[in-house]
Amino acid sequence: MNRKLTALRTLMKHHRIHAYLIPSSDPHQSEYVPECWRRRAFLTGFTGSTGDALVTLKTAGLWTDSRYYLQAERELRGSGFTLFKWGSADVPSWQDWAARNLRRGEILGFDPQLITHKEYTNLEKALGEGGIRLKPVTVNLVDKIWKEKPAPPSEPITILAEKYSGESVRSKLDRLRRKIAAEGAAAHILSQFDAVAWLFNIRGSDVQYNPVAIAYAVITAKDALLFIAREQVGEKVKAALKKKVRFRDYNEFPGELRRLASAKRRIWLDEASVSRWIVNSLQGAKLIFKPSPVALHKAVKNATEIRGAKQAHRRDGAAMVKFLYWLEKSVPKGGVTELSAAQRLEAFRSRQSRFRGPSFSTISAYRSHGAIVHYSVSPETDIPLKRAGIYLVDSGGQYLDATTDITRTVALGRPTAEQRDRFTRVLKGMIALSAISFPRGTTGPQLDVLARRALWEKGLNYGHGTGHGIGSYLNVHEGPQGISPARGFGVGLEPGMILSNEPAYYKEEEYGIRIENLILVIKDTIRSTAESPFYSFETLTLCPIDLRLVKRELLTAEEIRWLNSYHRRVRKELTPRLDRAEAAWLKNVTRPI
Amino acid sequence: MNRKLTALRTLMKHHRIHAYLIPSSDPHQSEYVPECWRRRAFLTGFTGSTGDALVTLKTAGLWTDSRYYLQAERELRGSGFTLFKWGSADVPSWQDWAARNLRRGEILGFDPQLITHKEYTNLEKALGEGGIRLKPVTVNLVDKIWKEKPAPPSEPITILAEKYSGESVRSKLDRLRRKIAAEGAAAHILSQFDAVAWLFNIRGSDVQYNPVAIAYAVITAKDALLFIAREQVGEKVKAALKKKVRFRDYNEFPGELRRLASAKRRIWLDEASVSRWIVNSLQGAKLIFKPSPVALHKAVKNATEIRGAKQAHRRDGAAMVKFLYWLEKSVPKGGVTELSAAQRLEAFRSRQSRFRGPSFSTISAYRSHGAIVHYSVSPETDIPLKRAGIYLVDSGGQYLDATTDITRTVALGRPTAEQRDRFTRVLKGMIALSAISFPRGTTGPQLDVLARRALWEKGLNYGHGTGHGIGSYLNVHEGPQGISPARGFGVGLEPGMILSNEPAYYKEEEYGIRIENLILVIKDTIRSTAESPFYSFETLTLCPIDLRLVKRELLTAEEIRWLNSYHRRVRKELTPRLDRAEAAWLKNVTRPI
Repeated sequence: MNRKLTALRTLMKHHRIHAYLIPSSDPHQSEYVPECWRRRAFLTGFTGSTGDALVTLKTAGLWTDSRYYLQAERELRGSGFTLFKWGSADVPSWQDWAARNLRRGEILGFDPQLITHKEYTNLEKALGEGGIRLKPVTVNLVDKIWKEKPAPPSEPITILAEKYSGESVRSKLDRLRRKIAAEGAAAHILSQFDAVAWLFNIRGSDVQYNPVAIAYAVITAKDALLFIAREQVGEKVKAALKKKVRFRDYNEFPGELRRLASAKRRIWLDEASVSRWIVNSLQGAKLIFKPSPVALHKAVKNATEIRGAKQAHRRDGAAMVKFLYWLEKSVPKGGVTELSAAQRLEAFRSRQSRFRGPSFSTISAYRSHGAIVHYSVSPETDIPLKRAGIYLVDSGGQYLDATTDITRTVALGRPTAEQRDRFTRVLKGMIALSAISFPRGTTGPQLDVLARRALWEKGLNYGHGTGHGIGSYLNVHEGPQGISPARGFGVGLEPGMILSNEPAYYKEEEYGIRIENLILVIKDTIRSTAESPFYSFETLTLCPIDLRLVKRELLTAEEIRWLNSYHRRVRKELTPRLDRAEAAWLKNVTRPI
Repeated sequence: MNRKLTALRTLMKHHRIHAYLIPSSDPHQSEYVPECWRRRAFLTGFTGSTGDALVTLKTAGLWTDSRYYLQAERELRGSGFTLFKWGSADVPSWQDWAARNLRRGEILGFDPQLITHKEYTNLEKALGEGGIRLKPVTVNLVDKIWKEKPAPPSEPITILAEKYSGESVRSKLDRLRRKIAAEGAAAHILSQFDAVAWLFNIRGSDVQYNPVAIAYAVITAKDALLFIAREQVGEKVKAALKKKVRFRDYNEFPGELRRLASAKRRIWLDEASVSRWIVNSLQGAKLIFKPSPVALHKAVKNATEIRGAKQAHRRDGAAMVKFLYWLEKSVPKGGVTELSAAQRLEAFRSRQSRFRGPSFSTISAYRSHGAIVHYSVSPETDIPLKRAGIYLVDSGGQYLDATTDITRTVALGRPTAEQRDRFTRVLKGMIALSAISFPRGTTGPQLDVLARRALWEKGLNYGHGTGHGIGSYLNVHEGPQGISPARGFGVGLEPGMILSNEPAYYKEEEYGIRIENLILVIKDTIRSTAESPFYSFETLTLCPIDLRLVKRELLTAEEIRWLNSYHRRVRKELTPRLDRAEAAWLKNVTRPI
C-alpha cells in the first residue's frame, strides 16, 4: 500500500472531504510544470506530462491519455492507483467518474490554484446536478506530505534583446493597453509564464525546455507590475525595464489581488488560463472573461522574429543533416541506440550558434517505439538501431532567435511496400497543407482534412492534431491557433503565425511515421484582391525527406514538383554549412525524382 | 415618418424602456415564421427571413445579412429604419451597437418569448458590462399597434403514417425517455415545431413550406403532453395517438410551466432553442441545459425514411428533367420569365405522386440575379430568359416520403470561358465532397474545405456554408449537422444523416453558379475496420449537370469517372419516368465525356 495515499486520506478526513483532486498542472496552468509543483508525479509515481489523479477515501485513480497508457501502466505498479485510460471507449473522464461515484452531499476538495476558472465552472455544473459539493482547500494537501519537495527555482532572469524580440516592452504594453481600454477594463492579469515572458521581453530557466520564469503580471493603464521572486531579478534587468515595469515579489501577488478586489475595478481575465483561486481572490471586482489579447499578439510574429526563425532554421537544418548523415554512417557499425542517437543530435544542435537547449524531450523511436506517439526514451526502454526498419526522430531546439520543432522518419534498411505506401500518403498530406492558399478568416480546423485525405483514402488516420502554434524562443506549444479537428477553432490564421505541419501514421507494435515541418502564414500576393486577401504557407524547416520511403507513382506531378523544389531549397540553404562529405550526401538525398 | 414607429415609441416610454428589440423570430425560434408572428415585417416593411430590428427613442435600425442587402434597401425606403449591413466590415451587430450607443443605466426592453435563453445570456453579458439593463416586457409592444394582425392558423393536423415515418411514436418516446432518464431529468421540453412534429408523427400546415403545426411538448417518464390549439386536433388524430399522447390546448402551456416550476423537478432544456420566457417561467425548477436528443434522433434517418428519400428523389429528378427539357425548348420561343419558369417547375413537381408543395420559395435567377444568393423572384424583379447567359434554379419539394432541395445552373446560350472555368471549379468541389471517405467522428466543418479548394486555387470563394441538414417531409433546414466553416461544429456525421452539398461561385452584377445535390451518410464497408468505422456519402439527387458548362481539361480522371458514373445513374433511374422526347434529351445531356 502507498503510504503517501494513507497520509493523504488522513488529511482528507481532517478537512472533511470525500475526494481530493490532484491535477497535473501548476498555479500557472503550465504544460511543462516546474519540479516543485510536480505533485501528481510525487503522489502517484506517474511522470507523464498529462494526467490527473482523483483520490477518494476508498479508491485512487489516475487518468491519462493514449500517449501515456504504457508508461502509466509501468509507473503506477504498486502505487495503489488504478489507471483510467482516458479517451478509450467506455472509460469515463474523472469528472464523469466523480459525478457517478460520489454520492449526493459528498464533497470533492481541490486546490483552487490548480484548476482554471473555466474548468471549475464546468465541474460545478457536472457535479452540482448530482448534489456533489466542491470545496476549495487553500493549503495543498500533497505539499503537506511531500517532505523533500524541491525548492522553487531561483536562477536569474535575463532580458531578450530587441534584435531578437523585435518589439520593445513599451510598444507591447501600448498595444495591450489599447485593448484593455477598448474593453473598458481597468486591469488585465497574466498568469501564464510565456505570456509574461513575451510581454516583458524576459527569459528564464525555471521550467525544463521552456525559457520562462515563474511570474504573474498585472497591467493597468499606467502600471505594469511583474510578480517574480526578488532573487531572480538582477540590476541589469531592473535597469533595462526601469520606468516601464515595477517589480514585486512573487509572494506579493495575493495582496495585489485583494487590493484590486477592494477597489472594485473592472478586471479582464482569460477564464481558460487564470486559476479559480485568482477569481476567488477578486471577489468584489467586476470581472470580464475573454481570451487575453497577449496570446494573439504573441502568436503573430513580427519581422524580426520571422527573420530570426528563418536564420535559426538554417542552423537547425544543418544540425539535422549532420545528424542524419552521421546516423547513416554509424548505424551499420553498431553501437548506436535510441538514447545515444538523441544525445548525438543534441550535440550537433549545441554546436550551432545561439543554441540554448532542446525545446522538448527528443522522441528517438525505433521500430515499434515509433508507434508510441510521445515515446520518451529512457535507459530501461532504450534499444539499439540496426540496418532494418524505420526510425522516427522528433526534436527541437531553443535558439535566441527562434524555437524549432522537426520530425523526420528514415529507413535504416530496405522499407516494405506498405511502409513506402504509408510514408508517401503522410507526405502527400504534408504537401497538401504546405501548398494550400486560403482566404482571410480561414481557421486551422478547416484545413486539417488536407493533411489526412490521402490516408483516409485507404481507411487510415492518425489520432492527434496536425499542427500547433510555436513560440519565438518560447514554448514549443502555444495557441491560440492550431490545425486539428478542434484546436484552433474560431481563430483565423494570420500572416506571421507559425504552426507545425505534422501528419503521421502509426501501426501499433510495428512502426511509426511522422513528417513535421514548421510553416509560416504569409500573404499570397498572387491570389489576394483588395476585398479578399488570400494567405498561404511558407515552409521554415530545412531538412531532407527520405526518398527511400517515397513511392513516386503515388505522387501527382504537382506533388513531385513541390518535393523537388523543397529539396532544391534545402540543398541550397544548407550546403554552405556542411563539410564536404555531408554536402555530398545531402546532394544525393535531395536529388530530383 | 413611420406612424407605427411613433406609436411604438409612445408605448416604450410608457414601459420606461429606452430601446426595444423586434427580432425576426417567433416564440418557437422558427426560421419560417407563421404570418401572425411576423412582427418585424409588419413594423419595418422588410420581409426577408432574417433580420432583427432595434428601436430607440431616437433611432431605428434593421440588421440583416448580405443575402438581403438589396431587398432590405428597397423595402425599408421611407420606413424610418436605417439598414445595418450585418457582416460587412465595420458594421456592428445590433448587440454591439446597443452596447456602444445605449448609456449606462438605460434599459433595453424585449419580448422574452422571442429570444432564446442562450441569446439572452450572451446579451446580458455584452450589455451588462456597460451598465445597460435588460427588461423583459411580457406583452409584445408591436402586437399592441398591429390592428389587423392575422389570426393564428387553425388547419387540422394529420398523422404521418408509419410507412413514411418508419418509427412509431411509442418507439420514439421510448428512445427519448431513455435519454431523459440517463440525464437524471424528470422532464424534457420541446418548443421547435419540427421536433414536435417528428416526435409525434404529426404534420400540419401552419407555416409556409414547413409541414408543421404550432405546438409545444413536455415529455416525462410517464407522460407526453402535446400543447396545440384544440381546434387543430380531430378525432382521427386523437384516436391514433390515444394512450401515448395527452392533448392540451396551446394556451395551457404557461400553466404547465408553472406546475413544473412549483414541483421543483429537474427539467432538461436546449438553451439554444427554448425561449428566455420558458426559462423564466420555470424559476424554482432545476434546469439542465443541453442540446435536445430529438435533434440528433430526427437527423439520423431510419431505413424507411431513407427508402422514401430515394424514391422521392426519382420523382423529383423526373420533374426536374421535364422542367429542364421544357426550358431548353421554350426559352428560344420567348415568353419565359424567371417567375413563369418557377411556376412551371412547381407544376412539374405537383404532377408527381406524394407531392405536398414546395419546400421553400424557388430561387429562379437569371444572369446577375444569380449572384444574389437568396434571390426571391417577384413581379417587380421578374425578367425574361433569353438565349444567352446563365440561369440558376434552386428549388425543392415536400413529399410525404421526403423533402428535396436541388440547385442546377444551366447555360441558356454559349457560356464564356470564365463561366466554364468557374462552373467546373464548383463542380470539382461538389465531386470532392461527394467522393470523400472519412472516419467516424468526423464533423462537417472538417470537410467543408474540400468543396472550396478548387476555387481557392484561383483566389475565389463563396460566402455561405456548403451543406445543411434536411428533414424527412419536414423542414428544408435542420440541424445539428452541417458542412460549413462553423455550422455543425462538434457533431460527428452519422450514417442516416442527409445533407446538402452546394458549393457555388458568385460574380456580382454578372452571374451566379451553384450546384446542389443531397447526400446521405452511409457506412463505407471497404474502408471500415472493426476498430475504425469509415463513412462515405451516397448522392440522392438525380438530375443532369450541364456539360456545356464543364471544362473537361480541368477535371482529373477520377472526377471524370465520377461525373460519367453519376450521369449513367441519373439516366438509368429517370428514363422510365420520361416521355420519348425527354428521354432522348436526357440521353444526350448525360452522355459520357
